Amino acid sequence: MQYESIAQALEALDRTQKTEAAYNHAMGVLYLDAATAAPKGSYIGRGNTMEVLSRVIYDLSTSPERGELLSYLESHAQELDPVRVRQLEVIRKDYDRSHKIPAEEFVAYQVLLNDAGAVWEKAKNENDFPSFAPYLEKIVDYNRKFAGYFNPEMAPYDALLNEYEEGMNMVTLDAFFSQLRNAIVPLIEKISGKPPIDDSFLRRTYPVEQQRRLSDYLMKTLGLDRNYCGIAETEHPFTTNFNNKDVRITTHYYENSLASSMYSVIHEGGHALYELNADDQYNATVLSGGVSMGIHESQSRFYENIIGRSRPFIHAIFPSIKSFFPEQLQDVDEEMFYRAVNKAQPSLIRTESDELTYSLHIMVRYEIEKQLISGALSVSDVPARWNELYREYLGVEVPNDRQGCLQDSHWSGGSIGYFPSYALGSAYGAQMLCCMQQELGDIYADVAKGDLSRITGWLKAHIHKYASFKKPGVLFAEACGKFDPKYYTDYLTKKFTALYQLD
Amino acid sequence: MQYESIAQALEALDRTQKTEAAYNHAMGVLYLDAATAAPKGSYIGRGNTMEVLSRVIYDLSTSPERGELLSYLESHAQELDPVRVRQLEVIRKDYDRSHKIPAEEFVAYQVLLNDAGAVWEKAKNENDFPSFAPYLEKIVDYNRKFAGYFNPEMAPYDALLNEYEEGMNMVTLDAFFSQLRNAIVPLIEKISGKPPIDDSFLRRTYPVEQQRRLSDYLMKTLGLDRNYCGIAETEHPFTTNFNNKDVRITTHYYENSLASSMYSVIHEGGHALYELNADDQYNATVLSGGVSMGIHESQSRFYENIIGRSRPFIHAIFPSIKSFFPEQLQDVDEEMFYRAVNKAQPSLIRTESDELTYSLHIMVRYEIEKQLISGALSVSDVPARWNELYREYLGVEVPNDRQGCLQDSHWSGGSIGYFPSYALGSAYGAQMLCCMQQELGDIYADVAKGDLSRITGWLKAHIHKYASFKKPGVLFAEACGKFDPKYYTDYLTKKFTALYQLD
Repeated sequence: MQYESIAQALEALDRTQKTEAAYNHAMGVLYLDAATAAPKGSYIGRGNTMEVLSRVIYDLSTSPERGELLSYLESHAQELDPVRVRQLEVIRKDYDRSHKIPAEEFVAYQVLLNDAGAVWEKAKNENDFPSFAPYLEKIVDYNRKFAGYFNPEMAPYDALLNEYEEGMNMVTLDAFFSQLRNAIVPLIEKISGKPPIDDSFLRRTYPVEQQRRLSDYLMKTLGLDRNYCGIAETEHPFTTNFNNKDVRITTHYYENSLASSMYSVIHEGGHALYELNADDQYNATVLSGGVSMGIHESQSRFYENIIGRSRPFIHAIFPSIKSFFPEQLQDVDEEMFYRAVNKAQPSLIRTESDELTYSLHIMVRYEIEKQLISGALSVSDVPARWNELYREYLGVEVPNDRQGCLQDSHWSGGSIGYFPSYALGSAYGAQMLCCMQQELGDIYADVAKGDLSRITGWLKAHIHKYASFKKPGVLFAEACGKFDPKYYTDYLTKKFTALYQLD
Repeated sequence: MQYESIAQALEALDRTQKTEAAYNHAMGVLYLDAATAAPKGSYIGRGNTMEVLSRVIYDLSTSPERGELLSYLESHAQELDPVRVRQLEVIRKDYDRSHKIPAEEFVAYQVLLNDAGAVWEKAKNENDFPSFAPYLEKIVDYNRKFAGYFNPEMAPYDALLNEYEEGMNMVTLDAFFSQLRNAIVPLIEKISGKPPIDDSFLRRTYPVEQQRRLSDYLMKTLGLDRNYCGIAETEHPFTTNFNNKDVRITTHYYENSLASSMYSVIHEGGHALYELNADDQYNATVLSGGVSMGIHESQSRFYENIIGRSRPFIHAIFPSIKSFFPEQLQDVDEEMFYRAVNKAQPSLIRTESDELTYSLHIMVRYEIEKQLISGALSVSDVPARWNELYREYLGVEVPNDRQGCLQDSHWSGGSIGYFPSYALGSAYGAQMLCCMQQELGDIYADVAKGDLSRITGWLKAHIHKYASFKKPGVLFAEACGKFDPKYYTDYLTKKFTALYQLD
């Protein structure tokens, strides 16, 4: 159609964004329901719904009307405010990207992911990689093909990395990970010569009902407004947001682990704060929600580790933790608790690993993804390669696939190229801590009192409120200057040198 | 468009039904989420989504393409099989009906209901009818207006009754309810001269965690396949179904009431069995799901009362109930338990009322709805009228609106004309029991062994499997002959005469 005025076209732009937001909301709730409350067999009937809705979303984002609207408004870009310009940029990218994926492949892929989620969960529970392998194979094939559609000039894995963190590539990541390894591996070696920290009390019996109460307390301490933030239970913890007034986190309770759910709640709580603190103006537009996986993980891992595993935070919350579990923690004091939740020890499960060895878990996945996408590794060889890399990087033997290559939900959800964001995010967070301290002074004095308001206020002002308005690189640079992994390696070195008296 | 063949048109018919089923699924999950896991404030962001999706559903069901498709296939009706003919009939009714409601009213009404649900829940919790009144007023106005659209020749309340039970009207219901009152009131009077049954042990402390386990046990006893049937917790129990492989029931646990959640689970379980036993062929078509509210309630109330409150069923399940609550039921035997869950006593809360007085609760709502829709009663006078009718019909004083006119979620959900289905369903169920016994013999011998398979098998064969293929009147008549409320009054008279030794 022909637009009579910019105002009319902007109205159409609002309408199309609202429509798309509604579909995304519906799909999001269907996914959340599938992961939480839905009975296992419900995936059979969900297929049709996912197929129909993904088709509509695809049609919407590739429609000729949208193309015309984009062209019209782009030709008037100089008359638009920066928010509109950025909206156009994001919609254009999505439009061009969608036009590169044939409709039937897009829809078939959505249906595949719906099935793969159920199959993976069952495969994990039953330690049965072969039943998941055909699905992973198809997911890898689709991703390789999509990478070619997105950016045929890049190596396929670079194109996938770009989907999660714009501008990222294997050259940068290889260097980044090598810098991390050079800092982390010597620390681990030194630590292995020290007496091990006793964290056995974290694996006493912690009834799930009490752990649920602890989650409520932690969410309150983080400043999460329960009026807008829910919590549910899933196999693998995650955060999902429908708008800045409706964010959900999930966790998984294990009766014999206190730290597992506790730190997953703080981690997902960090994601949730990012979403809840976004400006209202971005709701129901393409600029709603966090801007990239790296920035998102910087927030989750900031709260989880830099705050949540800090000595002052443990000081603030330990009395409450003890009040939830007086018997289990009878013989434990806050220093013991602090040391236990920071015990550095090569292990099997990424989500339960310590802050220091965490990035090594990421590197395993990064290596496997690179090789899967390049074709150097076949899906059937993933378990063997996984176990080999765990041996090489972490020095541990993987006893089964359940605790090995089936542990994460990412691949079954179609996320290949996502994992590096966790390590990047950790590094971003360490640099944010420095900038924050330069501006606010001794933030850990606040943390010791359980008061995170100035910290969250700083993050809201520099990161959260912008949602997806600024590109990740710009957002980070305007908040913290040029990215430098040295902040992170320095932070780790300082923390673990003190903790283990490595000097 | 012009169709080249019947086959081509039928393909289009399948496609449009699949699409509509997908939207209904998405809307259903959004509602379920809103009632269960969603944080309270999430209704703010849900508004846009509901608005967009209801608009799409409306556009779909009123589209000129659908009109053309209907006309084409209707002109070839004699060449179609009965399932297709019935599909056309249902779609035609909906098409004509939708064309009578202006689009903006339909959408505004959906948005109103979304808000009203949250407002009602808050109003009920805070015993604050005035905060809900403006919403109820608008809902009544819309319903009166819609009634005129649906069938301008009927009295508005008759038109609404027709939405829930085709062919129903006030003349029939007035007679039906008067027949019930004539049987029930003398029984209640006689019972009031007898020593009251002691049911105080049902209000001991029953920890919610244990009640959840009891729910699992009851669902298993009912034969509900947990692979396809979930359970969640809501303010007001309900059942929702997305297809015959995905049905959810909800309940509400009260620590000081064992019977409340127990019988809500059996009631909703009856609804769920109806949905789960539908033939696969009806999935993703307009014939999926139960055919009317009256038939649906006949199933729920059959399992809840005719089975669930029978002496043989208590014999079968009491040992298990006692194993869940050995201390609380230490001094209780199965005969005491049977008598307690059947104690007939005029009370305040419909969902917790006994089998005998239940229909009187329905009559209160029926009278108020009649008067609200006719305009004889204004919304602000509802609490006073409610309390008056409870005094007149049940002889009880209503202490507050929370336990009075705010107790049910139906009106906030837009359901006016629904309540009579509960009483009708109870009466249908009693007649089904007779027919079933004529065919199967002593079904209560099965019940005493906890084996409901023959009973559910009979209901599946005569009711469940047909989903919405047969009209409610035909479905009932083919299963049980002509409807006669006398089966129900006889059943009640016999049961309560024996229980209270009224001879």
